[in-house]
Amino acid sequence: MPSFSDRALKLPASPIRKLAPYADAASRRGTRVYHLNIGQPDISTPPVFFDAIREADLDVVAYSPSPGILPLREQIQGYYERLGHNLEIDEIMVTTGASEALGFVFAALMNPGEEVIVPEPFYANYLSFSLARDAVVVPVTCRIEDDFALPPVEAFEEKITPRTKAIQICNPGNPTGVLYPRESLLRLRDIAEKHNLFIIADEVYREFAYDGTEHSSALGLPGIEQNVIVVDSISKRFSACGARIGCLISRNAQLMDLVLRMAQARLSPPTLGQIGAVAMYQLPNSYYQGVAAEYSARRDLLKQSLDRMEGVLCPHVNGAFYSMVRLPVDSAERFCQWILEEFSHDGATVMMAPGAGFYATPGLGVDEVRIAYVLKEEDLAKAMKCLEVALAAYPGRKVREVATG
Amino acid sequence: MPSFSDRALKLPASPIRKLAPYADAASRRGTRVYHLNIGQPDISTPPVFFDAIREADLDVVAYSPSPGILPLREQIQGYYERLGHNLEIDEIMVTTGASEALGFVFAALMNPGEEVIVPEPFYANYLSFSLARDAVVVPVTCRIEDDFALPPVEAFEEKITPRTKAIQICNPGNPTGVLYPRESLLRLRDIAEKHNLFIIADEVYREFAYDGTEHSSALGLPGIEQNVIVVDSISKRFSACGARIGCLISRNAQLMDLVLRMAQARLSPPTLGQIGAVAMYQLPNSYYQGVAAEYSARRDLLKQSLDRMEGVLCPHVNGAFYSMVRLPVDSAERFCQWILEEFSHDGATVMMAPGAGFYATPGLGVDEVRIAYVLKEEDLAKAMKCLEVALAAYPGRKVREVATG
Repeated sequence: MPSFSDRALKLPASPIRKLAPYADAASRRGTRVYHLNIGQPDISTPPVFFDAIREADLDVVAYSPSPGILPLREQIQGYYERLGHNLEIDEIMVTTGASEALGFVFAALMNPGEEVIVPEPFYANYLSFSLARDAVVVPVTCRIEDDFALPPVEAFEEKITPRTKAIQICNPGNPTGVLYPRESLLRLRDIAEKHNLFIIADEVYREFAYDGTEHSSALGLPGIEQNVIVVDSISKRFSACGARIGCLISRNAQLMDLVLRMAQARLSPPTLGQIGAVAMYQLPNSYYQGVAAEYSARRDLLKQSLDRMEGVLCPHVNGAFYSMVRLPVDSAERFCQWILEEFSHDGATVMMAPGAGFYATPGLGVDEVRIAYVLKEEDLAKAMKCLEVALAAYPGRKVREVATG
Repeated sequence: MPSFSDRALKLPASPIRKLAPYADAASRRGTRVYHLNIGQPDISTPPVFFDAIREADLDVVAYSPSPGILPLREQIQGYYERLGHNLEIDEIMVTTGASEALGFVFAALMNPGEEVIVPEPFYANYLSFSLARDAVVVPVTCRIEDDFALPPVEAFEEKITPRTKAIQICNPGNPTGVLYPRESLLRLRDIAEKHNLFIIADEVYREFAYDGTEHSSALGLPGIEQNVIVVDSISKRFSACGARIGCLISRNAQLMDLVLRMAQARLSPPTLGQIGAVAMYQLPNSYYQGVAAEYSARRDLLKQSLDRMEGVLCPHVNGAFYSMVRLPVDSAERFCQWILEEFSHDGATVMMAPGAGFYATPGLGVDEVRIAYVLKEEDLAKAMKCLEVALAAYPGRKVREVATG
């Protein structure tokens, strides 16, 4: 048999994937598994999505233009205009989910060995997209005790080398839930300008900002318009993950030209999802407010439940729908397996994502889990009860003393 | 502004793209443009596609599993079983179009500098997927005078180096329309076995075989089961290009494991397209026969029309829905621009794809065009009339003497 590429052989198996057989086995035993391990919300996709596809009454499901259908690019343009960002149509490209946009960006930017600085913990797939280009993720560690706030400028400066090409952020953050205040972004702006770096901002959770906080887009950073690349998606905003519609936004014309060539090679993003997205971008502001209120209530329930559990540290954060949580366990990976394999409470158990997979620095996150509060409050409450009983029963229970910041 | 990756800067602009502004301008002038330049059929997508999506009555358009929904993988399994190929479910992965499958395959196989041998002319995007991995396409030239038949074994043998990783074919062929007889495939089998190479077979046009010919899949080649990778799609088979549903098939378990890791990083293929595809794979055999009969009639009309035009060479081929055609012109690229920019007949003109973009060897295909017979006979006849009048009027007309084989 011929051999495979060295690059492919380095690709990590998904950390979640290792747990999947245990979740499947639990389901087969009749145990209900509350899935808090993946960002798949239970919120209904707005009916206008389906209505628009039906009303389009297509005869042929044809390719769309490679950069997306014009009506969707115009809707996205209007959406950003309402946020205060003026964009030309050619500065907006529709992609097959934010995942494809990230793949395009890494392909366009990174030579082998070049580096992207990413605050950790970060969305684990950033590592896959980086590895696919033989690029290197250089982490800047954020601490749970600091509610995962962005570290000071010095922490970034000391990671910069001649090979540094970009700083990548997720705002608000997956997996942390952190919403970066504008002053944090301005600090990043200064670094990017000083060292001539791209800023890649994954803003797919933009509309999920709680407690009266407001999201600042990297598109609003003055003076580095040519350096900013924003990745966006309808997946979470409209609970339409399976539509596979995202977008890539930049005012850098050369970047958009290079990315268009890649987009042409893959022909087009999905046509039906684009048609549905056009309709969803016309939803009133009250839609966004309603969904944010729902997630905010879930976040409150989650934090209150976790704060009651001895030895658990749940940071105070106010965005997206994730929380990185420290558990009183010897190993979050072992605990996440144990709770699926050997535990149930009232016929149910919980699937969570072990924390270490979200860090690039070895040894970090080993007693943390990422919890996605994607289930309605009733289910979330039951899942939290499960977790509480499980933590008390877990044989590897271990509380560590922590100086909180 | 920071710089881009060397790899991205090497990506070719689409040859079609250069013509697009002229086609747009013609449309704006009120000229009807017959699009024979792209494989976008005018055949209706089967209504069961839309019915299935409507009947699914989804509340949430959720991610599908990364390798696709099980019902679709089972349908694909059943389809291949009817063709005589027994596959395990894990040997079938649903992808976002055949394009994504090709991207996965090149990522899994090719180290920088490694080579893939491809009979030319070939689908131009193979070059993009190859370049994206710093791999090298090594062409083996097929001649229009030989009806683009596969050259003898020696032509392949002399291209093999220690860096050769795979032979890639498209069968039946885009852009040639050639259906390889089983004996040609068996010759490739021998070469792949002798030199330990992968065979990448793009078989998306499999059902379009005319004149009583029968398609042989690379999956049926004995003794090299671990070396064969098949790329497939619903796009052309069911005229559902915009659904973006393809698949990758291999009995090589390690390949499928590596590709699964890539699939997980991009989360999932489009959910709606998968639901619709499940229904289409349940269509009776008469569906395939009906579509093939339609394309066969179009092919006949095309060839008869072209054979009547002086100086035009249209090979005899019997698959897919393309033909590479030699025109009596100084430059097909100039002619394709001229016919859009300066010509019309009865208020209409024709867009075709210049041939050089389908060859890797410089200088080949300069007087050839690819014609996609994706329009109904009535439109195709009008387009051929346009072409005939245009060839007579074109100032760069030039007939070359050719020894036909």
